[in-house]
Amino acid sequence: MTLEPNVETFLGCTAGYDEADIVLFGAPFDSTTSFRPGTRFGPAAVRRDSQGLETYSPYQDADLDEISVFDSGDLELSFGSPEPALRDIERRAAGIIGDGKFPLMVGGEHLVTLGAVRAALKTWPDLHIVQFDAHTDLRDEYLGAGLSHACVMRRCHDLVGDGRIHQFCIRSGTREEFSFAVEHTDLHRYDFAGMQEMIQFLWALDSPVYLTVDLDCLDPSVLPGTGTPEAGGVTFPQLLEAVIRACSLQVVAADVTELAPENDPSGVSTLTACKVVRELMLALGQS
Amino acid sequence: MTLEPNVETFLGCTAGYDEADIVLFGAPFDSTTSFRPGTRFGPAAVRRDSQGLETYSPYQDADLDEISVFDSGDLELSFGSPEPALRDIERRAAGIIGDGKFPLMVGGEHLVTLGAVRAALKTWPDLHIVQFDAHTDLRDEYLGAGLSHACVMRRCHDLVGDGRIHQFCIRSGTREEFSFAVEHTDLHRYDFAGMQEMIQFLWALDSPVYLTVDLDCLDPSVLPGTGTPEAGGVTFPQLLEAVIRACSLQVVAADVTELAPENDPSGVSTLTACKVVRELMLALGQS
Amino acid sequence: MTLEPNVETFLGCTAGYDEADIVLFGAPFDSTTSFRPGTRFGPAAVRRDSQGLETYSPYQDADLDEISVFDSGDLELSFGSPEPALRDIERRAAGIIGDGKFPLMVGGEHLVTLGAVRAALKTWPDLHIVQFDAHTDLRDEYLGAGLSHACVMRRCHDLVGDGRIHQFCIRSGTREEFSFAVEHTDLHRYDFAGMQEMIQFLWALDSPVYLTVDLDCLDPSVLPGTGTPEAGGVTFPQLLEAVIRACSLQVVAADVTELAPENDPSGVSTLTACKVVRELMLALGQS
Amino acid sequence: MTLEPNVETFLGCTAGYDEADIVLFGAPFDSTTSFRPGTRFGPAAVRRDSQGLETYSPYQDADLDEISVFDSGDLELSFGSPEPALRDIERRAAGIIGDGKFPLMVGGEHLVTLGAVRAALKTWPDLHIVQFDAHTDLRDEYLGAGLSHACVMRRCHDLVGDGRIHQFCIRSGTREEFSFAVEHTDLHRYDFAGMQEMIQFLWALDSPVYLTVDLDCLDPSVLPGTGTPEAGGVTFPQLLEAVIRACSLQVVAADVTELAPENDPSGVSTLTACKVVRELMLALGQS
Amino acid sequence: MTLEPNVETFLGCTAGYDEADIVLFGAPFDSTTSFRPGTRFGPAAVRRDSQGLETYSPYQDADLDEISVFDSGDLELSFGSPEPALRDIERRAAGIIGDGKFPLMVGGEHLVTLGAVRAALKTWPDLHIVQFDAHTDLRDEYLGAGLSHACVMRRCHDLVGDGRIHQFCIRSGTREEFSFAVEHTDLHRYDFAGMQEMIQFLWALDSPVYLTVDLDCLDPSVLPGTGTPEAGGVTFPQLLEAVIRACSLQVVAADVTELAPENDPSGVSTLTACKVVRELMLALGQS
Amino acid sequence: MTLEPNVETFLGCTAGYDEADIVLFGAPFDSTTSFRPGTRFGPAAVRRDSQGLETYSPYQDADLDEISVFDSGDLELSFGSPEPALRDIERRAAGIIGDGKFPLMVGGEHLVTLGAVRAALKTWPDLHIVQFDAHTDLRDEYLGAGLSHACVMRRCHDLVGDGRIHQFCIRSGTREEFSFAVEHTDLHRYDFAGMQEMIQFLWALDSPVYLTVDLDCLDPSVLPGTGTPEAGGVTFPQLLEAVIRACSLQVVAADVTELAPENDPSGVSTLTACKVVRELMLALGQS
Repeated sequence: MTLEPNVETFLGCTAGYDEADIVLFGAPFDSTTSFRPGTRFGPAAVRRDSQGLETYSPYQDADLDEISVFDSGDLELSFGSPEPALRDIERRAAGIIGDGKFPLMVGGEHLVTLGAVRAALKTWPDLHIVQFDAHTDLRDEYLGAGLSHACVMRRCHDLVGDGRIHQFCIRSGTREEFSFAVEHTDLHRYDFAGMQEMIQFLWALDSPVYLTVDLDCLDPSVLPGTGTPEAGGVTFPQLLEAVIRACSLQVVAADVTELAPENDPSGVSTLTACKVVRELMLALGQS
Repeated sequence: MTLEPNVETFLGCTAGYDEADIVLFGAPFDSTTSFRPGTRFGPAAVRRDSQGLETYSPYQDADLDEISVFDSGDLELSFGSPEPALRDIERRAAGIIGDGKFPLMVGGEHLVTLGAVRAALKTWPDLHIVQFDAHTDLRDEYLGAGLSHACVMRRCHDLVGDGRIHQFCIRSGTREEFSFAVEHTDLHRYDFAGMQEMIQFLWALDSPVYLTVDLDCLDPSVLPGTGTPEAGGVTFPQLLEAVIRACSLQVVAADVTELAPENDPSGVSTLTACKVVRELMLALGQS
Repeated sequence: MTLEPNVETFLGCTAGYDEADIVLFGAPFDSTTSFRPGTRFGPAAVRRDSQGLETYSPYQDADLDEISVFDSGDLELSFGSPEPALRDIERRAAGIIGDGKFPLMVGGEHLVTLGAVRAALKTWPDLHIVQFDAHTDLRDEYLGAGLSHACVMRRCHDLVGDGRIHQFCIRSGTREEFSFAVEHTDLHRYDFAGMQEMIQFLWALDSPVYLTVDLDCLDPSVLPGTGTPEAGGVTFPQLLEAVIRACSLQVVAADVTELAPENDPSGVSTLTACKVVRELMLALGQS
Repeated sequence: MTLEPNVETFLGCTAGYDEADIVLFGAPFDSTTSFRPGTRFGPAAVRRDSQGLETYSPYQDADLDEISVFDSGDLELSFGSPEPALRDIERRAAGIIGDGKFPLMVGGEHLVTLGAVRAALKTWPDLHIVQFDAHTDLRDEYLGAGLSHACVMRRCHDLVGDGRIHQFCIRSGTREEFSFAVEHTDLHRYDFAGMQEMIQFLWALDSPVYLTVDLDCLDPSVLPGTGTPEAGGVTFPQLLEAVIRACSLQVVAADVTELAPENDPSGVSTLTACKVVRELMLALGQS
Repeated sequence: MTLEPNVETFLGCTAGYDEADIVLFGAPFDSTTSFRPGTRFGPAAVRRDSQGLETYSPYQDADLDEISVFDSGDLELSFGSPEPALRDIERRAAGIIGDGKFPLMVGGEHLVTLGAVRAALKTWPDLHIVQFDAHTDLRDEYLGAGLSHACVMRRCHDLVGDGRIHQFCIRSGTREEFSFAVEHTDLHRYDFAGMQEMIQFLWALDSPVYLTVDLDCLDPSVLPGTGTPEAGGVTFPQLLEAVIRACSLQVVAADVTELAPENDPSGVSTLTACKVVRELMLALGQS
Repeated sequence: MTLEPNVETFLGCTAGYDEADIVLFGAPFDSTTSFRPGTRFGPAAVRRDSQGLETYSPYQDADLDEISVFDSGDLELSFGSPEPALRDIERRAAGIIGDGKFPLMVGGEHLVTLGAVRAALKTWPDLHIVQFDAHTDLRDEYLGAGLSHACVMRRCHDLVGDGRIHQFCIRSGTREEFSFAVEHTDLHRYDFAGMQEMIQFLWALDSPVYLTVDLDCLDPSVLPGTGTPEAGGVTFPQLLEAVIRACSLQVVAADVTELAPENDPSGVSTLTACKVVRELMLALGQS
């Protein structure tokens, strides 16, 4: 007889690379996390526990069997300096984009978004970014570093400029960050109020969109397993609806970040993150 | 002097068997659980932590002191093959019913419901089943087995036939299960919408009802301690109201299943399960 | 060179005692806790994890940098008999009040409130008490003791008399306690319904107010880390709004009690308690 | 049919009170614990998890089926002041002794020993105490209290006087406590060295003996689930041998204290405590 | 570009099937576990955390790079009835043996050994079994079932007969099991005393050997993460030496069972199990 | 009245900076940790839980009250690039040395040692390093980085050269690292065998010594709370004796690293680390 090697993928991501429309990859990096590390364990946990879900979504009446996703596993990122890690992420995302496929990254801390945004900007210089997040992430530097999870949207702003970052669910930041947002970004507090207007605006522009879901946009009761939980977030059905609506835009790349699975010993946070990824893939597959 | 043996019961269940109207028993079985075992510890945890509750419910202005419940402890079920366990459960439930009392079972995984439904059907062949659950549990088989927690409602359907299983809060299943439900059961998604119509329908029929509460109908934020938590569930007040309203029907037997206490190290899941059991007993006692 | 000693304070509480308007202190006492001890660890956990928050609140557009708070650390309370602990608390609160400052106590079990109320009553004999809590805490005695966390509001009633304790979010107690409340206190069930009327009533009286926040008023999904979690509580935004509105009254002293940090291994309960303290300080600073 | 109430006992303790030689009872008290509470949960955990053991001991070639033990459950002790709790313990132990039976108490913190020693001294005024413990427990007072787990052996010394407390495994205390021991007790550091001499001495005296096993005599690697773990303790086989040898003396009462089950989420501490209790009962049954 | 699928293997097991000398596979089964389930998670945990080890062993001065191991992943075993699971295991082991390779199984509960022993007996009818275990596992039935982790060695005895099961480290069982062993097996209590004699005996016979390592032979301080921890076990260096010495025999198949990773939140149990597997593979590779 | 700020120190470290002989400081850095982060929480945990210990050591018959130690709190180190963190550490250690005091650093991951060694070498260019550790830490680079916890002793070797690093308890590393050690360091496997010879050798040289205690030299049963636990380590009494003996040398600076408190929910690891620090300070104070 012969035996096959032990391939492990996110639930239902059984396509080969060549046939896939979406390519999932993990970015297990958390070196700049200041408060509680552990998002490095996010991608592996999402892959493993996704087996506890169904491939079918009653919300969208769609099944992962009907779309083509390849799971390319996790990048091997060096701990320590963030710049080499960002370059590895950018290279992976750029390769996927270059092959005409959709890169879907699972973090890791939110800083990993910067690598994928850099890659997307090369192909789509008029990119807009839609961010679901509890935090503004608009600091210019944090604890002396400009490459930090607390600065990632500021670094994205350096690249895309004013009015092209659309922030929702925001409920934490310094006074300076909120002031910066008034001038430079499209910030919406606490929940998804204002999303309809943004969608109409981006439809009108026919703009390519990078969607970044920092899972701490969810209320900590729903997802305690994250690095910096912030009371007062949205519910899972609210996030689900927002993700589906965002996918009505021309989304060209996306990520789901900041799951820290070991912070939630009940395992519910990981399962909820899995469901967000499942619904995001299904919504992308239908758009 | 003389000392009494150490009798342990669910809070306020101090009646003797003969005088009791309701007989509580535990069914600590989880052998078919596929994802995360541990519901075997549910009944003992409910019994123990119920001591942290009051006997009085402000919701119903009623007190456990005013009703007669006997707690007969947990069945000793063999791990391994489910059929002998189901027979033990059926025998216990049938005995209680035969003595004109109300059997209230605490699980264990949801498969235990099948044993008690078999017993109830012998006395009430026109039984309807009201199910609060995140999952359809309508698979015909699961991992090669037809007796599985994922198949329990399908097995019940084998017994009661079309239109007699009323499912609420459902948000997970295969496409096939949802299709089966369209044909054969009265399935309501996500919450308790449609409950008023069902109650009027069953009132009109004057039908006996088996009420099965799979605690994973609750949102995982409320009850993370269960085998297969599913984001997007109902709140505790919603479940409480639904339980009280269901008890306005002619409920003849009931269960509360799928608490996996060790999955929630905060202990909140167990306390919430205890409160569901208390409110259910009080609602039954008043109907 | 020379090195400074290691001063640890709640986030942003950097004022010296003389310049401070608010003086924070911890009361790490849990000796009468019957169900699950551990609130003794509350004050230290709040101090430590507050460093994970921002000093700025987008809810109130205010920053801890703009108010003057001194953190005097935790009292050293003896475990065992509660009366000496209550005397130590009363002495600390009285000293702070005597210096014209605002005492803000972090518990510890709810019994600690009695010490601070005694101190406040000496200066403000016409004091009203506003209580956010899941439990009535109106037992006359509990397990043979009159000084218990389950009796604290009854003991306060002994001091202030009828109609001067305003209770919100109440959802647990004996039938006797609820009956007592009908006669003697202003009890509101489940949430903050009736708060507007109470505020207008106290405005009309121009009465000094002691505000006591038992964190178990929050739903256990939001704050599982407490001694006696009770399903069916309020959300964080609801509590936040209530705290801010209560601070429109003439609040002269306050406490936040019943955080049991180790009951919630995710750490979310502690962070949420920190945010309640932050928002309370900011609301007090603006009133 | 009729159903029996749910009697729960320590493994194999199936005798009725009248026929029993040994009477087990729990003393779930931890109010004076200064560092980490939780020994209140010890007796219930020991009772519950003992079901995971065999009744047979290969070490002693003896079986619990061959001895007669009655488990009278846990005392209901009020939290707060220790003196009433000690009186309840003394009364229970005295009743058992008065009926010619052997009282075996499971703690709870070590202070509970004082209640049982008081009872034993009334019948056996020439009692010696054999103590296995990491701590001297010889403080005259602790945090202002004389009735504290840190003072229990000093209080026993108040009752029995010099030379009648035999301490083993001691590795923690103040300089004053070690000095006190030089004058007043028979203290052995770190392990059981010197035990043979003590046994011969007590054989010669034909003295009745109270045996108190503070489980923190074990190394924390073996039993992390205790209030104040101290590195450098003995192994389980060493304790087992010491317990068996101590039971060659005329032991008239005994206790096993300081299990804090929730401090060890692996559950190993509780299982090890169960085995200590099993072996102690078997050794007593054979002597 | 193209991307490879995400192959996950035990550390250093990078050979293809055809070139491999040893074939690792997981048997994630725990349905008959009576006390604490969770060994189903053992194989995946071992595979994952093995990445935290070095491939080089200073104990044996050998490296996994120097041997050829293929990791074929975990079997998909149905939960519920054990017989189908045993057949799947037997088939996998027989296939590997049929290809002239060495089957190394990672459990799962100890019952899985029966499947692999059945396979080995077909090729080597004169097989001896060397068992390192805390428990005799010699019950004829357990809770009404003959196929149980508590009966596995009795079932093996049914197959191999008297004098061919060599048991070490045994410290738990019923009186009947120990009596059975006196007649029928070669049982050694507590540790590896007598191993040298057994090795010489089996060398003389030149007998093929099945080596089964139930990890609960280790002391619970070393490996708390197992289903039924038993105080009084061996140390890691003792087990390591015994494994290496056993591999001087003609070992033809082996397993490592009873890791329950979630019972040890420190993760040490899993890492220790990984090291046992590494050392076992290296010892097999050198023999 | 006036109130003092909340100074928190390691147990008994009540001296002012000027009068102190030893200056303790924390280095909460873990950015290069590859397997399990969390040593950043080590210094704060050691400071906090040290309050659970006595100031008196029966092992050395010495008390912290008799020596002068100042606790300067934790450095604020930026997460991300290690070089700035190392510079901050070097500056702190150099300042303490410059004032004629003894720097005692608590980590943090082992890389922090490099900063303190750099500082010590400026004053004592003939420094020897005595290392207690499970790992060689002699890689030239790890995951592409030369500044990593896995490389720290290689970087020290770059500075001090051959024969001046004395390694004990080593049981993990690559073949290359063990080969490097044969040529360049004084490596002792598994335990403290060879320590007496090393001490005599360094006495003869009258060499200044830097003592670095990586707590993972302890067996994981004793200290599971570390980043990379390795089975087969030394016991606490063995480490205690080795620390005391090492302090008979001319030790000029020291550290205790690699406590990851959250990996051990029992808290025993932190308490054991506290005791190592206490005994080290007492041994230094007596030399």
